[in-house]
Amino acid sequence: MTTKIVLEKDVEVEKPLLIEGLAGIGHVGRNCVSFLAEKLEAEKIGELQSHHFPPYTIVNDNKVLESLKNDIYYVEINGKEVILIEGNAQASNNEGHYEIAEEVLDFAEEKKVEEIITIGGYGKGDVVEQPSVYGAVTDLETKEKFEDLEIDFDHEVGQIVGISGLLLGLGERRGMKGIALLGETPGFLLSDPKSTEAVLEVMEDYLDVDLDYSSLDDKVEESQEVLKKLQNLKQNQGEPEQSSDLGYIG
Amino acid sequence: MTTKIVLEKDVEVEKPLLIEGLAGIGHVGRNCVSFLAEKLEAEKIGELQSHHFPPYTIVNDNKVLESLKNDIYYVEINGKEVILIEGNAQASNNEGHYEIAEEVLDFAEEKKVEEIITIGGYGKGDVVEQPSVYGAVTDLETKEKFEDLEIDFDHEVGQIVGISGLLLGLGERRGMKGIALLGETPGFLLSDPKSTEAVLEVMEDYLDVDLDYSSLDDKVEESQEVLKKLQNLKQNQGEPEQSSDLGYIG
Amino acid sequence: MTTKIVLEKDVEVEKPLLIEGLAGIGHVGRNCVSFLAEKLEAEKIGELQSHHFPPYTIVNDNKVLESLKNDIYYVEINGKEVILIEGNAQASNNEGHYEIAEEVLDFAEEKKVEEIITIGGYGKGDVVEQPSVYGAVTDLETKEKFEDLEIDFDHEVGQIVGISGLLLGLGERRGMKGIALLGETPGFLLSDPKSTEAVLEVMEDYLDVDLDYSSLDDKVEESQEVLKKLQNLKQNQGEPEQSSDLGYIG
Amino acid sequence: MTTKIVLEKDVEVEKPLLIEGLAGIGHVGRNCVSFLAEKLEAEKIGELQSHHFPPYTIVNDNKVLESLKNDIYYVEINGKEVILIEGNAQASNNEGHYEIAEEVLDFAEEKKVEEIITIGGYGKGDVVEQPSVYGAVTDLETKEKFEDLEIDFDHEVGQIVGISGLLLGLGERRGMKGIALLGETPGFLLSDPKSTEAVLEVMEDYLDVDLDYSSLDDKVEESQEVLKKLQNLKQNQGEPEQSSDLGYIG
Repeated sequence: MTTKIVLEKDVEVEKPLLIEGLAGIGHVGRNCVSFLAEKLEAEKIGELQSHHFPPYTIVNDNKVLESLKNDIYYVEINGKEVILIEGNAQASNNEGHYEIAEEVLDFAEEKKVEEIITIGGYGKGDVVEQPSVYGAVTDLETKEKFEDLEIDFDHEVGQIVGISGLLLGLGERRGMKGIALLGETPGFLLSDPKSTEAVLEVMEDYLDVDLDYSSLDDKVEESQEVLKKLQNLKQNQGEPEQSSDLGYIG
Repeated sequence: MTTKIVLEKDVEVEKPLLIEGLAGIGHVGRNCVSFLAEKLEAEKIGELQSHHFPPYTIVNDNKVLESLKNDIYYVEINGKEVILIEGNAQASNNEGHYEIAEEVLDFAEEKKVEEIITIGGYGKGDVVEQPSVYGAVTDLETKEKFEDLEIDFDHEVGQIVGISGLLLGLGERRGMKGIALLGETPGFLLSDPKSTEAVLEVMEDYLDVDLDYSSLDDKVEESQEVLKKLQNLKQNQGEPEQSSDLGYIG
Repeated sequence: MTTKIVLEKDVEVEKPLLIEGLAGIGHVGRNCVSFLAEKLEAEKIGELQSHHFPPYTIVNDNKVLESLKNDIYYVEINGKEVILIEGNAQASNNEGHYEIAEEVLDFAEEKKVEEIITIGGYGKGDVVEQPSVYGAVTDLETKEKFEDLEIDFDHEVGQIVGISGLLLGLGERRGMKGIALLGETPGFLLSDPKSTEAVLEVMEDYLDVDLDYSSLDDKVEESQEVLKKLQNLKQNQGEPEQSSDLGYIG
Repeated sequence: MTTKIVLEKDVEVEKPLLIEGLAGIGHVGRNCVSFLAEKLEAEKIGELQSHHFPPYTIVNDNKVLESLKNDIYYVEINGKEVILIEGNAQASNNEGHYEIAEEVLDFAEEKKVEEIITIGGYGKGDVVEQPSVYGAVTDLETKEKFEDLEIDFDHEVGQIVGISGLLLGLGERRGMKGIALLGETPGFLLSDPKSTEAVLEVMEDYLDVDLDYSSLDDKVEESQEVLKKLQNLKQNQGEPEQSSDLGYIG
């Protein structure tokens, strides 16, 4: 095995929008995209598997084992085709981040993706009252396009670590354009519903949909469970070699 | 060299059961499977070699050098064919865990394995009076199958690190089913005979065999010797780069 | 992706001089070569991309994302053809350093490079009043050639870490000769203009050009901005696995 | 580049003895074999190069750069053909140790080597008055063969880290036999002449040669210089990612 996308079902698409959000700081990226996939009733069409993920296997509440993976969904919203990628893991080493990003971009290129939105968290290291949504773009034209939304382009973010940055930086080399949306979050919260909602509101606006947030709390609680287990793991089984913070950023 | 299975003798089998237990927490997995192989008079049919193992060579009591490896055994019990894998090492890095698990699964697939039992330890970080045996399964049907045995499915294990989890998680993608049995252990014992015996009792039941535990203490003592030497090594030769705790989990 | 040089424009050259300076201690190497490229109005002809760079994507002041890369420039000075390589990253792991150095040398060999000058910083761990420029060469003949310049060959440098050493050490195996110029710097300054200027003065002499240093401060300030952001990153997003000091040496 | 042996001159040999000693604890292995090569007037026939070595380039006393490498020598002593390998580096990561050992074994197999002697140090963590030479063998027959020499087979060494163990453990799989000789050393000495001499006396006996130790002190001093520079490097340029103690063992 290396890194590969396994499709359960192929879809014929026309320049779809790609939205990515994986496990990371405050779990903002993953919670956003997982919530979007559920609310928009997106269909799971495949998954990305990689030996660059940490060598864990998750035990869920039914004591059933689940491999780490990134799920790929498809949905049409208001006539716009959208592919979503969300999942419980990022690469556990540096080269892995590049390899997984390139694998996603190969798929995106095949599907003729022209726009990418990546979602993550940005840890402030302090309490955050009203979380802002920071933006970083591949080009100034894209910045203009997103200017009317509730996105803060006046921030101090100097770099984006992990797939949320790489998809855009490397995607730009293939002619794709896009934006990274980073929900401001304390950084010490396992899961940050306020920050997640702030980013979702921007997405709601951009996709022109109405989201019912009432189930967001469940979603958040669920991922909080997983993260608590992860904490236990570190205490009970020792911390694996490369589960650096990096694995949970972006 | 990469990772490969070298067979001394090939066996014709019909959907055998695969049992795995390698060096890990409390040495429960390895001690269990090594004990089973001896008591059931299983025949060694080959070994798995990998450059992902730590770059050690063991000096045994006769001052003879032994390379790290995983031994593969075969035995027929009550008309049931069983392949056992036990050994003194797991991978020393993240990708290595995946590569070794896939190598074992390639072999398992070739041999038409349909069921896998992986054995390991789960460190509580505290004294354990009566060690439970925790179970995690690939699917609910398998859970039902094992429900009548002395397995605790009401535990807090959130993830399994290393090969014991990966064999099941990745094996399930190839249509194999199975269970991970984790002997509860303090985590600070080099070798835990009580925990080992608890898991062996479950295996005794499942395989419908009678095990004579009188030699278990020797087995445990022997592996304790090896582990003490390992401790010495860390003091005398420096701790190698990637001998993370991860290498001794699962 | 692995490591590759992407040329925007190919140039016909005749035994050009290769000058390298990447992100490192006191940012001396990168600031020198980036300054030279600008002042000599060198033309960008391509870039080196690698999955061995750290998995960051930089957010610049316009909030536009920039992938890590090394830029390649070409210029003719006083009838002498020069190729310059400067950039914001070195490899983030050991093998990566070798792979990137070999990639640059493949390119250099194709272009029939016979001489290489690598520029870096050497951290003293103490205040430096008048920074010296330390030299280390591939051979004694080259040492003689550079003897009349303001280079200190009476120093304590025992080894050069990263690409500035490897390009020369490995290049020598391909018949190339050259010198490493290391600007003495405290080591705790993000960017050291004094040390940078000291090395530039040697280059000015060697290339027989006149440099206007008035804009050096801007250059330095600019890179200082980037480095400050990097510091923020470490606090806000966690420090990535392999961003060892090594990544910023040489 | 990966890992390769570059021969300057090929030699026709008949089942030569292979002797290995690389940079490691107390620098015993390297100092022994480097001394043997000099005293026996062995001829350099090639070198092993690898991107698994640490990404350093050494600056020697003339300020000339030297790449890390392992040198291969050939000499005939008393009608016995001997190949020697010594050098300033071991692999800087786990897989690298295996890859380099296998490369040496490929060469050894081609040359029909049947016996290997590896030399290293064993750190006691305490003052050593009269250093013993510990032995570990591939098989009991070899142990018998070396029994009459001044080798201590009654020690506590549990494992050998790095190439000195791997060459024997992996070599045994190819039908080669041999012994590891570990000079007892405090572990905190950069270079240990007493331990080096203890091992040399065993070699003197085994090879039936007379060694003049008067120049050993120079040899030791020389390598001490290199090691001191290495210490400086760690302070002045930061410690590279994978220069674990492992790199200096065996």
